This record gives sequence, C-alpha cells and structure tokens, in this order.
Amino acid sequence: MKNNNTEWIDCNNTEWIDYKEIFSEIAIELQSLPSAGKVASYIPELDHIDGEKLGIHLITTNNIHYSIGDSKERFSIQSISKVFSLAMAIDLEGTDLWDRVGIEPSGTAFNSLVQLEHEKGVPRNPFINAGAIVVCDVLASHFQNPRKEIIEFIRKLTGKKNINYSSEVAESERRTGYRNRAVTCLMKEFGNIKNKVSDVLDLYFDLCSIEMSCEELAQAFAFLSNSGANPLTGEVIVSMSHSKRINAIMQLCGFYDEAGEFAFKVGLPGKSGVGGGIVAVHPGKYSIAVWSPKLNKKGNSYIGMKILESLTTKTNLSIF
Amino acid sequence: MKNNNTEWIDCNNTEWIDYKEIFSEIAIELQSLPSAGKVASYIPELDHIDGEKLGIHLITTNNIHYSIGDSKERFSIQSISKVFSLAMAIDLEGTDLWDRVGIEPSGTAFNSLVQLEHEKGVPRNPFINAGAIVVCDVLASHFQNPRKEIIEFIRKLTGKKNINYSSEVAESERRTGYRNRAVTCLMKEFGNIKNKVSDVLDLYFDLCSIEMSCEELAQAFAFLSNSGANPLTGEVIVSMSHSKRINAIMQLCGFYDEAGEFAFKVGLPGKSGVGGGIVAVHPGKYSIAVWSPKLNKKGNSYIGMKILESLTTKTNLSIF
Amino acid sequence: MKNNNTEWIDCNNTEWIDYKEIFSEIAIELQSLPSAGKVASYIPELDHIDGEKLGIHLITTNNIHYSIGDSKERFSIQSISKVFSLAMAIDLEGTDLWDRVGIEPSGTAFNSLVQLEHEKGVPRNPFINAGAIVVCDVLASHFQNPRKEIIEFIRKLTGKKNINYSSEVAESERRTGYRNRAVTCLMKEFGNIKNKVSDVLDLYFDLCSIEMSCEELAQAFAFLSNSGANPLTGEVIVSMSHSKRINAIMQLCGFYDEAGEFAFKVGLPGKSGVGGGIVAVHPGKYSIAVWSPKLNKKGNSYIGMKILESLTTKTNLSIF
Amino acid sequence: MKNNNTEWIDCNNTEWIDYKEIFSEIAIELQSLPSAGKVASYIPELDHIDGEKLGIHLITTNNIHYSIGDSKERFSIQSISKVFSLAMAIDLEGTDLWDRVGIEPSGTAFNSLVQLEHEKGVPRNPFINAGAIVVCDVLASHFQNPRKEIIEFIRKLTGKKNINYSSEVAESERRTGYRNRAVTCLMKEFGNIKNKVSDVLDLYFDLCSIEMSCEELAQAFAFLSNSGANPLTGEVIVSMSHSKRINAIMQLCGFYDEAGEFAFKVGLPGKSGVGGGIVAVHPGKYSIAVWSPKLNKKGNSYIGMKILESLTTKTNLSIF
Repeated sequence: MKNNNTEWIDCNNTEWIDYKEIFSEIAIELQSLPSAGKVASYIPELDHIDGEKLGIHLITTNNIHYSIGDSKERFSIQSISKVFSLAMAIDLEGTDLWDRVGIEPSGTAFNSLVQLEHEKGVPRNPFINAGAIVVCDVLASHFQNPRKEIIEFIRKLTGKKNINYSSEVAESERRTGYRNRAVTCLMKEFGNIKNKVSDVLDLYFDLCSIEMSCEELAQAFAFLSNSGANPLTGEVIVSMSHSKRINAIMQLCGFYDEAGEFAFKVGLPGKSGVGGGIVAVHPGKYSIAVWSPKLNKKGNSYIGMKILESLTTKTNLSIF
Repeated sequence: MKNNNTEWIDCNNTEWIDYKEIFSEIAIELQSLPSAGKVASYIPELDHIDGEKLGIHLITTNNIHYSIGDSKERFSIQSISKVFSLAMAIDLEGTDLWDRVGIEPSGTAFNSLVQLEHEKGVPRNPFINAGAIVVCDVLASHFQNPRKEIIEFIRKLTGKKNINYSSEVAESERRTGYRNRAVTCLMKEFGNIKNKVSDVLDLYFDLCSIEMSCEELAQAFAFLSNSGANPLTGEVIVSMSHSKRINAIMQLCGFYDEAGEFAFKVGLPGKSGVGGGIVAVHPGKYSIAVWSPKLNKKGNSYIGMKILESLTTKTNLSIF
Repeated sequence: MKNNNTEWIDCNNTEWIDYKEIFSEIAIELQSLPSAGKVASYIPELDHIDGEKLGIHLITTNNIHYSIGDSKERFSIQSISKVFSLAMAIDLEGTDLWDRVGIEPSGTAFNSLVQLEHEKGVPRNPFINAGAIVVCDVLASHFQNPRKEIIEFIRKLTGKKNINYSSEVAESERRTGYRNRAVTCLMKEFGNIKNKVSDVLDLYFDLCSIEMSCEELAQAFAFLSNSGANPLTGEVIVSMSHSKRINAIMQLCGFYDEAGEFAFKVGLPGKSGVGGGIVAVHPGKYSIAVWSPKLNKKGNSYIGMKILESLTTKTNLSIF
Repeated sequence: MKNNNTEWIDCNNTEWIDYKEIFSEIAIELQSLPSAGKVASYIPELDHIDGEKLGIHLITTNNIHYSIGDSKERFSIQSISKVFSLAMAIDLEGTDLWDRVGIEPSGTAFNSLVQLEHEKGVPRNPFINAGAIVVCDVLASHFQNPRKEIIEFIRKLTGKKNINYSSEVAESERRTGYRNRAVTCLMKEFGNIKNKVSDVLDLYFDLCSIEMSCEELAQAFAFLSNSGANPLTGEVIVSMSHSKRINAIMQLCGFYDEAGEFAFKVGLPGKSGVGGGIVAVHPGKYSIAVWSPKLNKKGNSYIGMKILESLTTKTNLSIF
C-alpha cells in the first residue's frame, strides 16, 4: 500500500529513501576521487592520524542506522564539540547569551582578531574560537565543575559512559595555543570574560579534545534532527525553538569561511572540526556524521564535504 | 484515506496549516507593536512613502493565496530584484559565475569597500551591491538589451505585463550613487567589470527601481518554493539544483549583516530591500512577501521581520 | 671675517661641504651597484623610458649648483607635483585645509581605500592619491582655470616658461585610472569633493603628468630649503611657518609606506614619484633632485634612494 | 656684539637664543590656556596624580640648563622609556633588529592588533606597545638580568643612582594589561617572541613604570641632541648613525597616531608617555622634557604639546 502512494515518499518518513543504496554508490564514487587535502598538523596528536581513515554514520529520526567504514572508531572531534557547549549555554542563559556572543557569520578566517577588536570583544558567533571561548566562560560561571558537566551531557546524549577528553590533545593545544590565548586576553580586556583567562582556556582546550566515533556523533546530534528531543526516548534535550536556532547558527556559521559553500553544495546545517569530522542534520529526517582526516584549504574535511554533497544530490533532499 | 493518516499532515501539504487564522492573530499583534524604524531617506522617491503602509501576501505551492492590507499596492522592491538577476545569470553562466562573485556571507555592512579591495575585486556574494553589479555586468555581456530581458523575465514569472522600472527612482539613484560608482570603478580596476562602468551602473540602477506589489512578489518567487518550477504551470524557471542554491544564498546573504538574525528568528531563505519589502520562501510549502516601509538599523523592514518571525513561530515551521 | 670663524662652518654656509667631491664618490659607487628595480609599467608612456637614465642636481641656499648625468632631461614628475599643489592650497585655505585632509602618515599602501572609508572620506594626508585629489578639488573651487594656475606657479618657481603638462601621460592615466575614480567617488559620497568628479580627476591627471628636469625640480623646491623664500630673489613663496609644515608633511608622508625607511636612512624631508624622481630638502642647506626610473617594491626610485642615503651619510648631515 | 651679528643667531650656537625670556613668555601664556584634557585613569597609580603639575627642563648641547615649575619632581615616564630600551637594543642587535620590528608609522591607534595580525607578528615600529615588547624580548635574550641593565643604563645617562622602577605601577599594569598580553601572545604565535610571554611582559611592565623628573629626562636624552655622545663627558652612548636613526624613528613614530600633528606643529623628534611627560630633541641644539599630566584625546600631554609648539614658534627653530 505504501508503494502505491508516491507522494508519501516525498514526506518526512525517511525510511523510504534507500540510504543503503545511496551509500553504496557513494562508496564507489569515493574510489575514483583523487586523494587530496592534508591532515591537520599544528599539533602532533592530530598529525599522527592515518589520512585514509573514512567513516560515515547516518541515523534517521525513526532510528534506522546506516554506516560505512571506520564509523565506530573514535577521533578528535575538535570544534564539533562547540555545538554541545552551545546547547548547554543556551539552556542556562537564554537570550542573555546573545549580549556576549553574536549570531552572524564571521566573514573572515576562523581565528581572526580583527573583527573581535572592531566589535569590542563580542565574537561574531559561538562557533569561531572566540565565541566558543565565551561559551566556555558562561559554563565556567554556572557550574562548579564545567568539565564534568560537559562530558556528562555528551554521555547522556549517546548513552556511552566512556566518551572522554584526550589529555594528550588538550595538553598539546595548551602548549601551542597562543592565538587562542591572545583572543581570550583581548576579550578579557573588553570585559567579556568573567573567569580567569587560564581557567577558561583550560576548559576550552579540554572541550576541543573530546574523542567520539561517527556513530556516537550521529547519535549525539539526533536531537537536532528531531526538534530538540531525543528521537529514541522522547526526552527533551533543548526546546524546539532552541533546536531550530542551533540549526540556524550551524547553517550560517558552522564551516568557518566556507559556510556559504556548504550551504550551497550540501544545503544542511552542520559543523566541522579540524580532526576531519563533519556532522550535519536534516531536520525531520536524519543526523549524519562523516570522518576523513584530510582537510581542504579552509580547514574542513575534503572527502567529508564531497560525501555530504553527493548524499544531498542523490536524495534530492536539502533544506532548500 | 489521506485524512486517516496523521503523519501526512506533517508533510508538504500546506493546506492543513490555517494561514488565515494565523494572519488574523498576526494582524492583532501588529496593533500593539510600537511604531519603530525609519523610512529610507537617501533618495526623495523613497522618503515620500507613507510609513504606515502594510501588505502581506502568501502563496502556497498548492496555489492558495492569503493576503492582508496593501498587498496589491506596488512599491520600490529595490534589492529584492537582485534575486531575479541572479536567477538569470546562473542560467546563463552556470558555475563560471562563481569565479566572479562569491557565495559567502559578507560579514560587514552591505556597502563596504574594504572586503572588496582585500579580495581583489571579487564580491563576497551576489546580494551585496558589488555582487549585484557584477551580475548586471554578466547580463550586459549576454544580452543586446538586458534591461528589457530582466523586466520580461519578471513579467513572465508574474503574468503581469505592466510591471516596470521607475525612471524617477533610477534617475535619483543615478544622481546620488557615488558609492556604487566607487565600487564599480574598483572592480573595473581589478578587471571584474567587462562592460563600460556607466552602462553597467545604468542597468543596476534600473534593476533596483522595479516596482511590484506583495502579491506580485509572492507570485514571482513561487518557483523557489517549488524546486525551480512555476507551481501553477509547471514551467521550469531554473533547475532544481539552481533553485536550491539560490535559496541557500538567500539564507546566508539575503539580509546584509542581519542574515544570522533572520535565520535565527525566522529560519527561512529570504531577501529584503530598502523599500521595506521582504520576500521569504519555505521550500515545498509557500512563498511570502511582506511590505512595511520603516526600516531597522540594519536596513531591513522593522515590521516585516516581526511578521515573518511571528509566522514561523506560530506555524512551528521553519526550514530548521 | 666669516672665514675666521670656524663655528660658522657648522652653520648654514653649505659651500664648505665639498659636494663636488662627494658626488664623484657617489658616481663611482653607483657603478658597482647591481641593477635592480623595475620601471613603472602601468601606463605605456612610463614604460617606454630608458631605465638606465640617471640625473642628480643639488642647489645650495647660496645658489651653488652641482649636477651629474641626465640632470637637464625632463621626465614625468608624477606625484612630486603634489607638493606644488599643496603649497598653493595651503596659501589659499590656511588651516581650513586640514578639515578636509589629514597630516598623518597613511600606514598602508598609497592607494588603499580601506582607511579612506574608515575615516569618512577624509584622506590621511595630502600626498596619498586621495589627499592630492582633495587638494585639486580645493584649487578647482578657488580658480577659474586651476590647470593654468598650477603650471604658472611652477614656471614662476623655476623661471622656465616651457614647463608643461604631457597630454599623452594625462590621457593614459585618464583611460586607466579606475582606482583613482573609485577613490574620488567615495570621497564625493562623503561630501569631501565639491566639484564634479570628472573635472577634479581631469585636473589631478594633468597635475601628475607634468614634466621637469632634475635641475628644474631642485630649483622649484629651493624655497623649501630657505624658509619659504626663493633663495635667489628673496621672493616669499610661502610663509616660514607654511614652509616648515610642508617639510614636516614631506618627512612623514612623502614616500608612501616607505616614509620611515627614508627618514631612517636619508633623514631629510622629500617626495618621490613613480616616474623615478625624488626631491629632498635640507632646510637651511640645499634642495636636491635625483632621477633614476627603476623603482623598488614600494614604488620609489631604487637608485635615487641609494644616492640620497649615500649623500647624507658622506656629509654626516641629516636633519636628525 | 650679539645685535650686530644677526646671522650668527640663526646658527647652531644655542646659547644665543634667550631661552629664559622665551620660557617667561610661555609661562604667561600658560595662565590664559583653558584647562583641558584628562589625567590617564586606567590604573589607580596614574589617576591619583595632581593634574595641575607642570614642569619644563631644557639642556643645551653647551650644557646650559633652563627650568620651570615642577621640573625636579619625578613622575611615571611610561612610554618615554621605550627610547632607552630601543637605544640598548640597537646597540646589541644592529640591523638585525629591523627583521623583528619595523620603522614605519603605525597609522592606527597605538594598541591596535589589526596591523600586527596583518603583518605576521612584526610590529610597525619600536614605540607602539607591540614593538616595545619585542625590544624587551631582545633585551631578555641578551642579558641575564635585563631589568637591572636597563635601570643602570638610565642611571649612567643621568648620573642619578636612585632612579628606579615603581613596583606599584608595574604591578597595577600587570593586573590589568590584558591587551598587552593579547599582543604578546599573538606575536608568540607568529614566532616573534623568543622568551616566555610572562617574563617578557614582566620586563615590559617594569620598563613603563620608571619614574624620572623633567631634569633627569632632559639629561638622559641629551646624547640624542649631540650625535650620540654625552655632551658633558663626551662619552659615546650610541654611534652618530644610531643617534640619527633613533631621532628619525621618534619623529615618525613618537606620538602614536598624532605623529604628523607633532611634526607639523612642533617639528622636532620626540616621545610622549601617558604619564603626561614629553621629551623632544633638537639635534645640535638642545634636549627638553615637559610634564603636565592631563592628556588630549590621542593620549599625549595637552599642555606639553602646547609648550613645545610655542617654543619652536618663538625660537623660529625646528628641524624643518
């Protein structure tokens, strides 16, 4: 009966799209794709990663899973974790948060100090480093032990108790992160950092060191594909309104200065990390995580972008 | 059978949302909204407009129309027409277009020369003035009479033969538009303007002078809510892929440096003009045009933004 | 009596320095200097110049002349003429001039629009293009025929009736000078250009096309080495106060973004042009013009800078 | 005899200028000057200073002293001490120093990060904060105890053994100097700080905390009015070439973004500090220090600037 109703297939019932078939096609395409991009090398812990790793994991809002390759192997999710800290901070601060961090695209490279100085220490959005550091400052003001609260939040989203920070990665960032230190001092000068600079940076470096697999990431982002509620348990993680707004921010700011490119070619809200991971969400349909460590010149996973572009092209489904 | 299937209601069949009821509620809300914002005053033709004008027109992909107030009165659509010229240029140039104009948010005020100089005469996106001027240059290269082609394109979209340029508005812009002249000369210096500066500017000033009503705008944008095809006639205006990409660009760049704010609060692709018009599109559901001449500090219609925010809040429907 | 007074020799009597000997040494040094730099090529009229041309002419305040090489051959003085137009404008406007053009170094490349936009159409100083264009606008407001007044002023300074504009050079600049057009339109937008853009630019392009020899330039600048008065005739060209101030502006702004380098190595107020000319002034001692068409990366004469550095090193005399 | 030899008075023999008379006139003028400007308030130690303090001390190269008011009272010399550290670093590093710090005017406010980022961590000149911090880094690399070496250098210049750092001022800067910390971290990121950030900043904050009187400052700068040699003892402090170059840098960069204004109105190389002190040098004639704590909007002593302008106007002597 379902099969007779072609209009049905255009609807939100994602099971009718044959993701398995689509992923098979993508897997074949990937073989003919020239190897390109470079593994992030600014800290040794990232540089050591095998550039040929590849994982994909998609979870529909009906909880059907599709995966390819190294989808269960954990990697450094880096900036992707900024979505988790943002979700926590929105819940705690509500609209007050937007006095301290903007929601506009940055328009320049992800670590520029120019805009920050021009705009009096208020970062453009919560996904550039400066913005994520302000979000860490918010969490540091609200929680006795923000480090523990963040990881517990992610463990709850995924049901995996052993997700954790990498102390090696965090330590390495701590040793070399002079630009982040400069950014934080500048915001402190403007009064937009309330806690001690070193405490906030410690939390930030920890945040970026979290290690998760594609499967875990897709699971952790499922609430953003389901209006803020865990699709499996129905538990409300954030309100529908906050869920929509986090997605809007991901759409406009999730890919440094390649946000337009991603919206243009993929057409989904998402967030990338220099570890080579990308998470994207189709509201009402699915969440997906891909991992391929080699980055393009803008710092986003070269193959990850290709996979997601191919996925939305083949399904004829983007939010636009 | 359809009626028994409650999931169906979540689907693309927009008739199940009671837009009439929602617009009644919005109309009541508007009465308690404090009057705010200022009518654009940089040319006399805009300054003369009655600031209390208000029009709304929504057309679903099923071709059901809803309207309020001055929805049939024409006004200066200004930058909204940049979507029409972009649609024409994408069709003519394909991906070559993106060598001459970017698709990233501008991150700064809509008429800044800084970024343009830094990025060697390639405008950030086709909706900032510089980008729209490059698009005019493209049309000037392709057509013997680009001015006629543009207006014919819009007449075809709307079925209204008497939509036209306002020579008074165009002339006024021509007399005062020194910044646009500066921008065009700078791009000419960088080799990104192929035709005579004065010819391209004449076309651009004409483009911004077009006058349409909310009803006509909603009709003209209907193809972007319907994967590129006129929902009434089925005629393909642009390919599905181009339709998605125009929507993506509107989402990221349609509101000057308030794009994030609009995505955050409204959550739809759209485009505004300093005449007080805003058009938005919910792919698969509807296109809508609102008009209220008083602008907020960012140059977007103050009440227009409020109406669209209220609409997507009440319908619980945004693309996110 | 003078000759008996050895302290006198430290004073303004420049004849005691053996410039002839010094220039012989410099001439020898020049032979071992590697050929470097490039002749300006942005317009054909400059590109055709023989890069090996070399002229030097020095005139002491006692009216003793020293010269080397092609010192009597005329060349395109380009930006050097901005000192003449400034001297005229200071005389006409007095301190009001400084409301429309600053006296601070530009800090960025000589044709940047960024600073101009940031500072609301007020150029940093009268020697960047934008500032010289404002000075032309001032002259255009004061004189019926500013073009004639400027050339008469220079003819008076030099006593040479046949110094003139090059219509070929001016025409070439006019055809290609889109950046200057952009700059002027931007200032017009900010209200800092009172006359028609095209009239002001025509005057500016003429100003930059003037052709003079080293001998004529050294003569024309002699008043700035002599507190504002022609050392030969005693005629006051500008007041002592204005003379000092023009020298101060040359010191700080005369060499685009190489002003510090010139102050550091040469230590004299001066002005360069992309035709390869440099004029410098030692107040109370001499004026000097050098010409060598090949430019360094900053747009100043490569060998001209070397000669002046050598001169002040050998004489142990700079203003510092 | 004086009266008979008018030309003599224009020469380098500074004793013939009646500074005593000139200072009497200036003292009278000061009484009619409206009180303006504000004492620096960003640290309590500066805010506590009596804004009505006024000191002047001039020393000719013949070692004749003239003084007015609080010329023997010590105050926080702040940025003036950057000249001492520069003189030491030039001596140690020679021209290598200029690979790490520029000699061009900054063109923007004295603490801007924009230019520093754009120019890859190489500060524009040694007198903006970033540049002075690099100079401190150079001293920290050369000396076991740079803090001791700096103060000994100043004690030697003045012959005053009890000149010292103010630990209160240094501590206060240390607590609040987040922008300087940001600047230093950014340069560390670019590899232009070799020592530990906190060590370099400690030295920098100490450097700015030195307290001296006008008399001591005029004495300490006397070598720069005398081609690098102490005029009293003949001891060579820096070479003649280095002396000229330090003066050139002071001329172009000594007054933040008011360097042009100072060159224009005063016409002498000099250096100011936010403590309200200004030191200026007329090469071959005199060194002078003035102190008046109230600052103009650019951060330079309001009355100090007036005094020096009046001095060079009345003596008809500037370097231009």
